[in-house]
Amino acid sequence: MEKLWMKNLRKIDPYVPGEQSKNKNIVKINANENPYPPSPEVEKVLKNFSSKNLRLYPDANAFSLKKAIADYYGVEVKNVFLGNGSDDVIAVAFQALFNSDLPVVYPDLTYSFYPVWCSLFNIPYKNYPVGDDFRINVEDYKEPNGGVIIPNPNAPTSLGEGLDFVEKLMEYNSDSVVIIDEAYVDFGGVSSVPLIKKYENLLITNTFSKSRSLAGMRIGFAIGSETLISVLEAVKNSYNSYTVDSVSIEAGKASMLDDRYFKETCKKIIATRERVTAEMREMGFKVLDSCANFIFATKDDMSMKDMFEYLKTKDVYIRYFSVPRIENYVRISIGSDDEMDIFLKELKGYVKK
Amino acid sequence: MEKLWMKNLRKIDPYVPGEQSKNKNIVKINANENPYPPSPEVEKVLKNFSSKNLRLYPDANAFSLKKAIADYYGVEVKNVFLGNGSDDVIAVAFQALFNSDLPVVYPDLTYSFYPVWCSLFNIPYKNYPVGDDFRINVEDYKEPNGGVIIPNPNAPTSLGEGLDFVEKLMEYNSDSVVIIDEAYVDFGGVSSVPLIKKYENLLITNTFSKSRSLAGMRIGFAIGSETLISVLEAVKNSYNSYTVDSVSIEAGKASMLDDRYFKETCKKIIATRERVTAEMREMGFKVLDSCANFIFATKDDMSMKDMFEYLKTKDVYIRYFSVPRIENYVRISIGSDDEMDIFLKELKGYVKK
Repeated sequence: MEKLWMKNLRKIDPYVPGEQSKNKNIVKINANENPYPPSPEVEKVLKNFSSKNLRLYPDANAFSLKKAIADYYGVEVKNVFLGNGSDDVIAVAFQALFNSDLPVVYPDLTYSFYPVWCSLFNIPYKNYPVGDDFRINVEDYKEPNGGVIIPNPNAPTSLGEGLDFVEKLMEYNSDSVVIIDEAYVDFGGVSSVPLIKKYENLLITNTFSKSRSLAGMRIGFAIGSETLISVLEAVKNSYNSYTVDSVSIEAGKASMLDDRYFKETCKKIIATRERVTAEMREMGFKVLDSCANFIFATKDDMSMKDMFEYLKTKDVYIRYFSVPRIENYVRISIGSDDEMDIFLKELKGYVKK
Repeated sequence: MEKLWMKNLRKIDPYVPGEQSKNKNIVKINANENPYPPSPEVEKVLKNFSSKNLRLYPDANAFSLKKAIADYYGVEVKNVFLGNGSDDVIAVAFQALFNSDLPVVYPDLTYSFYPVWCSLFNIPYKNYPVGDDFRINVEDYKEPNGGVIIPNPNAPTSLGEGLDFVEKLMEYNSDSVVIIDEAYVDFGGVSSVPLIKKYENLLITNTFSKSRSLAGMRIGFAIGSETLISVLEAVKNSYNSYTVDSVSIEAGKASMLDDRYFKETCKKIIATRERVTAEMREMGFKVLDSCANFIFATKDDMSMKDMFEYLKTKDVYIRYFSVPRIENYVRISIGSDDEMDIFLKELKGYVKK
């Protein structure tokens, strides 16, 4: 029997995190994780961190990490917002910036968390279908709206847009806040950070989880005008003042300062991606031109769902989405060269059958 | 000029985190931080943690840490919820459990974040004044409401209530969810965790920031019925799936398993608190009977605000609240014996003037 107090419990369909296997020996290329460890400087931070300092609260403003990010992007500390992963950053941004009766708009094929946040915060939303080539049509984004969020590069399509696209988007949306989610930009996309000086209503979000190999550390950030950042800070400080812990602040800073390692890692992943793309095309796959650390692929004469299930039996985990329009596509994260060789070997085995 | 897009920005008065000094040589007894380092096992976790693992997302369910907490409290893993500090846990609980048109109720003198969360989530709220002795009158909590939250021990009053109080509260509130915030319970309070088996609508929250000296690591938790915990999980997974990072999971687990160190630390703080309380009473202060790691005190013939300002000039930082009814009180966190000796020396110097 439902008791009276139960009627005040929130009814919501939770986001279900991706599949994890307990088996350590799998090729795990299903969560867009980086195959390489973080900068060796991060290892030093952990080894040298004095646990005595943990008795104290972290710096609520995480100044030293903000400063490292600001310097890297050529902006001021007041232009940087930090959170517990970019999911936290975007969730705060939705609450802080999308308070309209008009719907928030985004592409139909995109990060599946956007509608979840809209539901959680009771924000109306609407999506515009991407084209048959999976490209976002900027002309769709001319209608009045309560805000725009677009990942660039987009996921799971892997396609990236240039600054001309973003400039047009800003031109059409001078009355809305526009968020560009750049989680995957470091793998060959074009960052719109330089445009924040021109557009006070533009917010760029990014994460340390992909290109900086720190998914386990939970650091996300946003860059935008002082007006936008101050509203994010007010909402964050009304929710939880200390979202980034003391170890993450130091680890994030060390990663940001080691630019050589960062660029090398990104370069290796891009090279592997290009090789895998070429080999798969050779095998008859259609592979989209990726600007991310994953590829999005199909083969017309083959069930991608069956292929996904088959690869799992070979301990190779890729990602399949049971979503209209892309039900015959798979998303494959770029692992190390060794991992991708195993993937390609098993894939060949399946295709030849 | 306000632009059109600015009208959709959230207007909110942020919570302002407490004062921090850049001077490292101060006696900082203003934030209820623990003067002792965390368990030496935490130091080992940091030294031995392989940064390579940080490339992967943490276990979204943080099973190993939940298991350590469940075992400690004699409950099941399904009765435990984890968050990025107890502020995150309580913020999720407000969103998940307080969805009523009736006001959420709590004491007038209590944790100042409660009304901030209510404002952020548009939850109506109301408070009941504590008595002149600062005790919470359980009879006030008989009226229909949208939920109850009470810290036990309460802050900043330091007063604790027994299980009889909580049982009565539950009897009067069988139609609401009741949250008991036990952030300070390990310093001599009585935990209501055993009551969760009797009351399915009772949620207990706690933190690793105070008694476990891990404020810098951001770990909070809640214990309650499977019904309540599953609603918290659904809301959390609609906000951010990975709130507790990989290092925090291991550090928290190590702390939870080192019970001997934990109990010793709590005992030392209690002993110091009793000594400081006695010495201050000797000097003519009224000091409430504390069950927490801080004391709440006044002196009728003296301005506590002036005393607070004076101590700051001596590099001793205590906490003063410019809040009606307690504008002549100060809150003093219990530091190490050495820190408290400095505090007492400076206090004597001020009182003798």
